Amino acid sequence: MQRPNYPSGKDLLSADAISRFDLDDIFERAERHLREEEQEKAGILPEQPPVYRRRPKVIATLFDQRSTRTRLGFQSAAARLGHQSIDAYDTDRSRLGTSTGESIEDHVHTVELYSDLLVVRSHLEDMPYRVSRLSYLPVINAGNGADEHPSQALIDLFAIRQMRGEIEKLTIALSSDTRARFAISFVKMLRLTPPKRFTLCCLPDVPINPAMREAMTVLAGLGTEIGIVHDVRQTLGHDILSIQMQDMSKFAHASLGNEAVDKEKETEPFTITAQKILEARSDTLILNPLPRFSELDTSCDSLPNAGYFRQVQLSVPMRMAILERMLLGIPWTGQAAAASGSPAAP
Amino acid sequence: MQRPNYPSGKDLLSADAISRFDLDDIFERAERHLREEEQEKAGILPEQPPVYRRRPKVIATLFDQRSTRTRLGFQSAAARLGHQSIDAYDTDRSRLGTSTGESIEDHVHTVELYSDLLVVRSHLEDMPYRVSRLSYLPVINAGNGADEHPSQALIDLFAIRQMRGEIEKLTIALSSDTRARFAISFVKMLRLTPPKRFTLCCLPDVPINPAMREAMTVLAGLGTEIGIVHDVRQTLGHDILSIQMQDMSKFAHASLGNEAVDKEKETEPFTITAQKILEARSDTLILNPLPRFSELDTSCDSLPNAGYFRQVQLSVPMRMAILERMLLGIPWTGQAAAASGSPAAP
Amino acid sequence: MQRPNYPSGKDLLSADAISRFDLDDIFERAERHLREEEQEKAGILPEQPPVYRRRPKVIATLFDQRSTRTRLGFQSAAARLGHQSIDAYDTDRSRLGTSTGESIEDHVHTVELYSDLLVVRSHLEDMPYRVSRLSYLPVINAGNGADEHPSQALIDLFAIRQMRGEIEKLTIALSSDTRARFAISFVKMLRLTPPKRFTLCCLPDVPINPAMREAMTVLAGLGTEIGIVHDVRQTLGHDILSIQMQDMSKFAHASLGNEAVDKEKETEPFTITAQKILEARSDTLILNPLPRFSELDTSCDSLPNAGYFRQVQLSVPMRMAILERMLLGIPWTGQAAAASGSPAAP
Repeated sequence: MQRPNYPSGKDLLSADAISRFDLDDIFERAERHLREEEQEKAGILPEQPPVYRRRPKVIATLFDQRSTRTRLGFQSAAARLGHQSIDAYDTDRSRLGTSTGESIEDHVHTVELYSDLLVVRSHLEDMPYRVSRLSYLPVINAGNGADEHPSQALIDLFAIRQMRGEIEKLTIALSSDTRARFAISFVKMLRLTPPKRFTLCCLPDVPINPAMREAMTVLAGLGTEIGIVHDVRQTLGHDILSIQMQDMSKFAHASLGNEAVDKEKETEPFTITAQKILEARSDTLILNPLPRFSELDTSCDSLPNAGYFRQVQLSVPMRMAILERMLLGIPWTGQAAAASGSPAAP
Repeated sequence: MQRPNYPSGKDLLSADAISRFDLDDIFERAERHLREEEQEKAGILPEQPPVYRRRPKVIATLFDQRSTRTRLGFQSAAARLGHQSIDAYDTDRSRLGTSTGESIEDHVHTVELYSDLLVVRSHLEDMPYRVSRLSYLPVINAGNGADEHPSQALIDLFAIRQMRGEIEKLTIALSSDTRARFAISFVKMLRLTPPKRFTLCCLPDVPINPAMREAMTVLAGLGTEIGIVHDVRQTLGHDILSIQMQDMSKFAHASLGNEAVDKEKETEPFTITAQKILEARSDTLILNPLPRFSELDTSCDSLPNAGYFRQVQLSVPMRMAILERMLLGIPWTGQAAAASGSPAAP
Repeated sequence: MQRPNYPSGKDLLSADAISRFDLDDIFERAERHLREEEQEKAGILPEQPPVYRRRPKVIATLFDQRSTRTRLGFQSAAARLGHQSIDAYDTDRSRLGTSTGESIEDHVHTVELYSDLLVVRSHLEDMPYRVSRLSYLPVINAGNGADEHPSQALIDLFAIRQMRGEIEKLTIALSSDTRARFAISFVKMLRLTPPKRFTLCCLPDVPINPAMREAMTVLAGLGTEIGIVHDVRQTLGHDILSIQMQDMSKFAHASLGNEAVDKEKETEPFTITAQKILEARSDTLILNPLPRFSELDTSCDSLPNAGYFRQVQLSVPMRMAILERMLLGIPWTGQAAAASGSPAAP
């Protein structure tokens, strides 16, 4: 897939967009939103209302792929900032994609004039890049085919930091299809704060996706100890285990309502259960981008290791932080850093 | 159906949740919203903006059953309070309920982290109770199968009070399927402010639903004169007639888009018409939860007896009051009162 | 179709509703919204927050016809004013129109109590008029069958004025099916500010729609020079060309999801291309209500003549102006002017 330049840094299309400086900034913003929410729940009101200094903004979601979490998550984050969302890819109601539908170009050129920020999810890898090239608005890639899902990676790193502290001091394992978009963005994003050790847990007989291999090579170059295992039991000595099913191909490419989405047939070595955690006397923090399939047994839910719902909770202030930063027009500086020799560009 | 405890009083699942104290409070809040709306329409602006003292809240609707009025009504009430709604059971767009869908448990645990209050409508009696047990958020039961619809009962009591004054001094008739959820909640709620007389108008050859029978027994124990008739003509001497069709079973259980919903075949004795009202020289106030079917002839619309659209209008400040109270975290004290010997617990 | 009186001027159903006085007012409001948006983008904040002096309002959209632009456009304009929208004709979720659905009368009488303004789009010419008669709320006709689309006409006139100045001094061409609703409203609206010349470009062998003929006669009576041509090349000496396809009948009448919408088969004389514009050395401003079909070639997009995306952009402040005015209860005075002898009533 042809990658555009980021002349302005306006978009969040890939983990490449983010620099270490940006990561620190976005963590700080997310922590502020989290703190304000906790203060409000505790009855400590801000002296002045926190929003409404400006006109409400309009966030447009253009999703051609099924989503519960991501769409509702951005809608909710927008609402908490005092903004509103419009669903700009509503296949039931619009003409887009029908025989008389208008082109993607005309649709984007229209929607951008009605809104302030575009959130795109597509089964097509190229779609967020197309939208980004077409529009002067900031664009968030909320998952594009088997490519990337950078806002999820920011959520995952924020969750790790909030629950286990400085990522540089941690050992992190990932059990996932190496082609999964959340996984690729996650490992690419780790370059900004390389962990002590990174272990990939994957099927033994499936080649590792080149993008994943490249991201791991970057981590190795930054001093992270790299390992590969083929059983989740071998990850239970790590501080963190981010786990998803091992074969996401059918899932990730399923378009809205058109293709049957087959349920993952996990095999035993890639399934985490309470029994395995207890047998290992492990205090590994378990993360999962959700929805989960058979890879994460519900028996884990009552263990202190279960971090995945707190991860969902932390997604709200993080999505607020992302929207806030991009609506303020603050550019992402990752690519620029890469151009001047950052470790992100091997 | 197994009923949970109300340890915190956080939820509005049943008319049992409400105490007389709560009813007075919710009437007062609804009256304030009504007054403020009327003042604004008259051009009398509040000295300070009425909302926005806090961050906007997010109301999540989880409806697996068709609805116009209830969904739009809660969305509108939320909007007027400065809050926003997200549609968290969007069968077209989410994976919930598909073969790869996530469990209700995971879905609720996610949605509760994106929102501040859950409104549940389901063709399954147990669903709001399940959601209530799963979530720490306040939950409103906006209709569950053939069980209850307590927010509608609050609307109905508020409408009676606004249009005819103190309920204790009134005679009230109900013509309805005795299994209808709005009807059960209505009669159960009347225990908080027992009318002088309560008359049930029902099919002669259908047994009265046990829940309805129990609620009527409670009223009798509180001194209300109870009657049963089989023709609406015999209700036209009452102050109030709340009327709906006599066979709601197919309707109430119809799930979203799956089952055909048969139109009620009302028989003549259970249909109210302008002619019957005029022949009886009745000033009975006619209420109907809407949508209406053949039980309520449109010839009634131009009579002063027609109270059902004013009833819809009064639903807005009442739903605002319910949302406001529950978002502030004020518990319902009904069950607690019952535990300490209130008449609600026979 | 039977036309109601406009006793109150509450509704925007037809170009007839608008007087010259109203047009000046709505232009002024739209210019203010445009200026404020530009100031905010430039970082010049208003001294006081521009909205939130009153409670948020609720805009209900009742669309039974496919729409991207109009629905999103009104939603976005409402959001920018601090208001919210509810989708009150949601065929997937409501019972309206099903065998157990409620009547249009009951539905409108319910929705009006939940909202502050109704936006109606229908494949039925009569629908906005029915809704207008049924409801005390202000009603916007956002396109009714082959009748009118007055808010689009206001957008078009505002776009011309912003991009080319005073309309009275301009020559304007329209290439369109003479039955198209946007075209009829456009030519009727021009009576308020009659251009120097008006040229209709239409198929030679199709009779001109009577409503169009009448609107052109009114313009002629006001001193506008009228012409009819059958090739867009002959319009390229005009200041403005508003162009759409020449056969909209199938398109305009297509109801939601039921009928196939055939793509316009434009013939060469009614297609505008960059080549034609460049050959004519024309500086004609090209407008198009969008979505476009083959009548407007994408080769035009990079020419300075292309005004159609700026036209979309200007639709936001214009829709804000329309909503603002109508929510404030300011009546349209067009029909009153007609009654007292305005040129609009021939």
